[in-house]
Amino acid sequence: MDEYLRRLRDGSLKLYALEKELPPDKAVAIRRRFIEEETNTKLEHIGDLSISLDAVVKKNCENMIGTIQVPVGVAGPIMIHGEYAEGSYYLPLATTEGALIASVNRGCSLISAAGGTEVRILKDGMTRAPVFAADSIIHAKTICDWVMNHQDEIRAEAEATTRFGKLTTIDVTTGGTSVFVRMAFFTGDAMGMNMVTIASAKAADLISQKTGARLIALSGNWCTDKKPASINAVMGRGKTVSAGILLTNELIERVLKTTASSLLEVNARKNLVGSARAGSLGFNAHAANIIAAMFIACGQDPAHVVEGSLCITTVDSAPDGVYVSVTLPALPVGTVGGGTGIDTQAESLRMLDVLGSGTPPGSNAKKLAEIIASGVLAGELSLLGALAAQHLARAHSTLGR
Amino acid sequence: MDEYLRRLRDGSLKLYALEKELPPDKAVAIRRRFIEEETNTKLEHIGDLSISLDAVVKKNCENMIGTIQVPVGVAGPIMIHGEYAEGSYYLPLATTEGALIASVNRGCSLISAAGGTEVRILKDGMTRAPVFAADSIIHAKTICDWVMNHQDEIRAEAEATTRFGKLTTIDVTTGGTSVFVRMAFFTGDAMGMNMVTIASAKAADLISQKTGARLIALSGNWCTDKKPASINAVMGRGKTVSAGILLTNELIERVLKTTASSLLEVNARKNLVGSARAGSLGFNAHAANIIAAMFIACGQDPAHVVEGSLCITTVDSAPDGVYVSVTLPALPVGTVGGGTGIDTQAESLRMLDVLGSGTPPGSNAKKLAEIIASGVLAGELSLLGALAAQHLARAHSTLGR
Amino acid sequence: MDEYLRRLRDGSLKLYALEKELPPDKAVAIRRRFIEEETNTKLEHIGDLSISLDAVVKKNCENMIGTIQVPVGVAGPIMIHGEYAEGSYYLPLATTEGALIASVNRGCSLISAAGGTEVRILKDGMTRAPVFAADSIIHAKTICDWVMNHQDEIRAEAEATTRFGKLTTIDVTTGGTSVFVRMAFFTGDAMGMNMVTIASAKAADLISQKTGARLIALSGNWCTDKKPASINAVMGRGKTVSAGILLTNELIERVLKTTASSLLEVNARKNLVGSARAGSLGFNAHAANIIAAMFIACGQDPAHVVEGSLCITTVDSAPDGVYVSVTLPALPVGTVGGGTGIDTQAESLRMLDVLGSGTPPGSNAKKLAEIIASGVLAGELSLLGALAAQHLARAHSTLGR
Amino acid sequence: MDEYLRRLRDGSLKLYALEKELPPDKAVAIRRRFIEEETNTKLEHIGDLSISLDAVVKKNCENMIGTIQVPVGVAGPIMIHGEYAEGSYYLPLATTEGALIASVNRGCSLISAAGGTEVRILKDGMTRAPVFAADSIIHAKTICDWVMNHQDEIRAEAEATTRFGKLTTIDVTTGGTSVFVRMAFFTGDAMGMNMVTIASAKAADLISQKTGARLIALSGNWCTDKKPASINAVMGRGKTVSAGILLTNELIERVLKTTASSLLEVNARKNLVGSARAGSLGFNAHAANIIAAMFIACGQDPAHVVEGSLCITTVDSAPDGVYVSVTLPALPVGTVGGGTGIDTQAESLRMLDVLGSGTPPGSNAKKLAEIIASGVLAGELSLLGALAAQHLARAHSTLGR
Repeated sequence: MDEYLRRLRDGSLKLYALEKELPPDKAVAIRRRFIEEETNTKLEHIGDLSISLDAVVKKNCENMIGTIQVPVGVAGPIMIHGEYAEGSYYLPLATTEGALIASVNRGCSLISAAGGTEVRILKDGMTRAPVFAADSIIHAKTICDWVMNHQDEIRAEAEATTRFGKLTTIDVTTGGTSVFVRMAFFTGDAMGMNMVTIASAKAADLISQKTGARLIALSGNWCTDKKPASINAVMGRGKTVSAGILLTNELIERVLKTTASSLLEVNARKNLVGSARAGSLGFNAHAANIIAAMFIACGQDPAHVVEGSLCITTVDSAPDGVYVSVTLPALPVGTVGGGTGIDTQAESLRMLDVLGSGTPPGSNAKKLAEIIASGVLAGELSLLGALAAQHLARAHSTLGR
Repeated sequence: MDEYLRRLRDGSLKLYALEKELPPDKAVAIRRRFIEEETNTKLEHIGDLSISLDAVVKKNCENMIGTIQVPVGVAGPIMIHGEYAEGSYYLPLATTEGALIASVNRGCSLISAAGGTEVRILKDGMTRAPVFAADSIIHAKTICDWVMNHQDEIRAEAEATTRFGKLTTIDVTTGGTSVFVRMAFFTGDAMGMNMVTIASAKAADLISQKTGARLIALSGNWCTDKKPASINAVMGRGKTVSAGILLTNELIERVLKTTASSLLEVNARKNLVGSARAGSLGFNAHAANIIAAMFIACGQDPAHVVEGSLCITTVDSAPDGVYVSVTLPALPVGTVGGGTGIDTQAESLRMLDVLGSGTPPGSNAKKLAEIIASGVLAGELSLLGALAAQHLARAHSTLGR
Repeated sequence: MDEYLRRLRDGSLKLYALEKELPPDKAVAIRRRFIEEETNTKLEHIGDLSISLDAVVKKNCENMIGTIQVPVGVAGPIMIHGEYAEGSYYLPLATTEGALIASVNRGCSLISAAGGTEVRILKDGMTRAPVFAADSIIHAKTICDWVMNHQDEIRAEAEATTRFGKLTTIDVTTGGTSVFVRMAFFTGDAMGMNMVTIASAKAADLISQKTGARLIALSGNWCTDKKPASINAVMGRGKTVSAGILLTNELIERVLKTTASSLLEVNARKNLVGSARAGSLGFNAHAANIIAAMFIACGQDPAHVVEGSLCITTVDSAPDGVYVSVTLPALPVGTVGGGTGIDTQAESLRMLDVLGSGTPPGSNAKKLAEIIASGVLAGELSLLGALAAQHLARAHSTLGR
Repeated sequence: MDEYLRRLRDGSLKLYALEKELPPDKAVAIRRRFIEEETNTKLEHIGDLSISLDAVVKKNCENMIGTIQVPVGVAGPIMIHGEYAEGSYYLPLATTEGALIASVNRGCSLISAAGGTEVRILKDGMTRAPVFAADSIIHAKTICDWVMNHQDEIRAEAEATTRFGKLTTIDVTTGGTSVFVRMAFFTGDAMGMNMVTIASAKAADLISQKTGARLIALSGNWCTDKKPASINAVMGRGKTVSAGILLTNELIERVLKTTASSLLEVNARKNLVGSARAGSLGFNAHAANIIAAMFIACGQDPAHVVEGSLCITTVDSAPDGVYVSVTLPALPVGTVGGGTGIDTQAESLRMLDVLGSGTPPGSNAKKLAEIIASGVLAGELSLLGALAAQHLARAHSTLGR
């Protein structure tokens, strides 16, 4: 080990090159040792890992020094009635935020008592939108027209790069001489960002070649990836999924200790009016919490919590109670690729019976989306219910109403 | 163990109640065993953990069954010149997205070659905004007026609940009869959400009592927590922090293999025009990636990636090159509380020499914010540089320019 | 006349220079004649005007050729209970959209039958936000700090330019090296854009001089003027005004032919959920219609309809009916300056008894804001009521419910 | 007259009913007289009108009392190279904002000196989006699916109501149990709001009947009409139109007294970064000013200035100067219907040779859109140029650079 450390210190060996000379566990150990020295800290827990590293150092993490252990707990069981998920599930949530799992757990109980969530995938398509430079706004229009008139040609080019990917829709827009081409793909059980980037690159080359458009960036932010953007709320990205449940007055009073009208008021004033007055693109209570926790547990990309946070939560008055729903316009998820194959993450996916490719392709990813949306509904119900109950309690005591 | 499993199965023992009868490691093990049976899966890697659980099961995670191991690697060293961070740092990034750390690493090299980031905290304040119901818009105005005219009284009430917290600013707004009171607090080295929630509760009670306003929810979404909202971009939340660096033409050409004008064009067309045309609140390339990876590594709340994604990246023309910057209007971070005390996360923070309370209070959290912003700058530079280089290469080859 | 036309044709006389040689009515007539020839059209109606032109050609309109006659009708009377407007008013609406006035008129009747609007000004401040360039993000912070630490100095400089204007609040932000300083002013009875631009120019010069900030533009779009922006919804611009009214079930059924629950549902699904899903900054039915019509009638700046369209309309459940409100966060209005002095516009303002300066200064502009907000409430009520009645009718007939 | 006034006073004659008993000019005169008495004001100028009233009182304005005379001037000539507008035009601008026309005029001169605007229509479609209530999120999905699978049937139903209208695209989305169906129509030379509302009503009835969806409102705010909304920026509404021009360095220096780099900097810091930091949906300097003035002059709906304000202005670096453009994603205009037939407004349209139906249908409305976009470009150029020149002057003098 000392020899490697010496070479790292004198710069003759690069930190990222350790895996070229050593097996993964050795490489990671020496790198960690080096960082311990450089930063004068002990990294024993980071180093005390139990996952196998062979694939990880190649696919998931360069310059690896170990693992961060994120506590994972379960909420549930929660009864779910989807087109892909059907039955009772325990939800794995990796989080360090105390009370979060307890809260989701209460929501799961309530949902199960009410008969289970209704949940549906409304749309499915991972997107990429290269940006091109045109010479003039006339050229920009020519490019747009060419794209819209040659969709089959573009599709053929794009789909030649992928076994599963299918180019489903193409949209174009401009901002002066900048031309954006947003391509949405069916990506099977993969979240699909890599797949669509590769496919879009080929499509973009074709467009450049045929129109003289200069390709500026494969992602032109009209995708939009990992930035909170209305386009994803309006047009969807990844899975668009909605979950709902009918709560009777009896259940609301017995389990949530509140009333239908109080739930309606909390949702209206907080999630709708409050979000509106904040210039928010998300109209929910804490959807991001559940999405982040399930994403980390299940090897999803946690930066995609941004898209997930666009969730809108609604409470409708119903004849005997309320109907509560969440709609997530943009939930990018996958059950193959990304972090799904890492040992601990794979176990979470197995708990939900969604690891790997589904039959038909895409069904596992859709099932995962249905489960996450149901989890979000549980989280929203629990928090709204708690707020409504407190509010009711205060109304009774403090204000004497 | 069998006895506990039996009781869990027959419902006489609740899943969350195991810690009441057993030490944490036993409780977690039995719960995991129960879930393995219920879901018919093996969770051996989730169970093969090495962090100590005593505090974790109390503070961070209910219904715990083990840990998710997220691979962590380092990028750097990166030279940073802040008011709190000064020197060379290795950045811990917990991620499963291949190529991310390699990309940030390239940015760190470039930054160090250019002399290091300039980084500054511009604003600091964690927020909570309860929503109240008024009887009429006249009552709403009365409530607003009372709040703005009794700030000292409200401050005293709020600050009585906390040792470190200081209520710094109060803003009010209405949406009809819904009244929102946004309180911003200095929270020392804590990220501060819990602190400000407790303090806001007392303030809200006072407001209710004095004005007859009905408190509907302690968070009225005008905070705005974990939803992508303009109010945070405009007014800040958590740390508002900016990092910048001057790149000479020589460096741009030698290291990034591109030109100043190409960097300017990529940033303008993608990060500014593209984001604008997408109705985005984030004007950056992939800030969320770096924030998510550093947040998970450092025990921060990953749902706060939503706020972080509001980042704007700019490239200015400079006499001999470009000045590139990132501005993160809302970065909620802390070095005490939350997940900061978990063994692996604590080690990440120690690598950066920011674990625990700083002297003076708040300085460690600010230092962490400076380091993360510098990491975001590294990530943006690397991606913009790569796009610009590709774009330049294509311009040379494909289009023969 | 022929001589002037000849000189215009041969370019020896510029079109805009006619007023230098001729009295206004002659100048306008010759210019119109010239345009008639150039465009080969008759402009007899445009020329058949009856307002006096002396002030108009100097203050309101260069290169004038006549007037556009916009039909003006009245809605009302509407009973208003504000702090400035108290009593019964006829609202002048200049519009070409058939059915608009009839609709507002129904709303006025309903409001009067219900006892009149409650209306309040919540905030008052016209804004300008110059943008400065800093050399680095460190320089940017220095500029921000200087501004926040020298508010009195800046105020003195700004207020020296104006008799009425008072600088009330200063906010700063940055986007990398761009520094924005948003100054809000009390502007008496003037809408105040010119006043605050002049005052901001002096303030900006001071800031430049003291900090080395390069002033890039007196308006840096962080004001935000005539662009739909969250900052105005969050922080206000011009008048922030709210109007509300309680409608009893009896009134809802008798006059609107619908029910409280139907009104609640229409507002929730259309104005809240629909706007949210559209990425809208306006959460209303057609506030812009009423604002545009009253602005044109009253000599206000019709481009400010953009700010007005940020209105949020709410319907709350009440013990015996509903409470309906509109909140306009940003309504820029004035009763002196702009188009207020033109003969026809002045008559509209006189109808409302708000022409010119009020006592105390500002009270006329505030009264006008209260009246317009009440008009917006009438328009929203009428349209929501019509939708709710149709929806109810359909529910009864088509669906047999 | 006295008899009518008496009946109006005692309520036996309704204000709006005057036209039933009297010819328009008499009705308007008596109504005005009544309002003069009621409000104790003279309305002589409002009454001193010269347009013919027969059509106006039926189509454009209920309860009419006269007209508001808005001063109209001309800017130009401006050279335009569009697909519909080709040649030199004088732009009619109805405004009360001093200096506006002078500013646009300077822009027109610059544009003409530079050879004229390039301008193109990129998209054309007026939209309506009814909102339906579903019983559950499952029902919501069923409705969406039915709509997307029965587009031909819906199209046939919708188009049966109109001679010119063509239903071009249908999009659906949900927010929980609220289902939104956005239909875009080609509407010939009409702006088309009425046409598409009628057509959408029939389409909505069909959808209700076939799916059991409850129609809540014909406009569900996902259209989005007269509210500033991202959906219109992303997907277009009315005409999507872009105009651009190449300015050489020589021209920039000679006419604008500034430099290419200064223009680039002003646009970047103000229109892009400033707007981004304000949470704005408009990225321009003052597009709303020009749109409002031309809309009022040409009988367009001034509340649609809201949509127009979504404009983005770009400045690109070019080999010998800059390329400046404006893109208006949502410009609703027409040359038949609305206020286009009123005498003064019709004259403005005739000046531009676009009054009435074009050949083929739609060409006049498109021509008008091209002209307005060119006017907006003139306005943006003039203001950006002035800011850049001032900024340059200050840089030279104040800061001695």
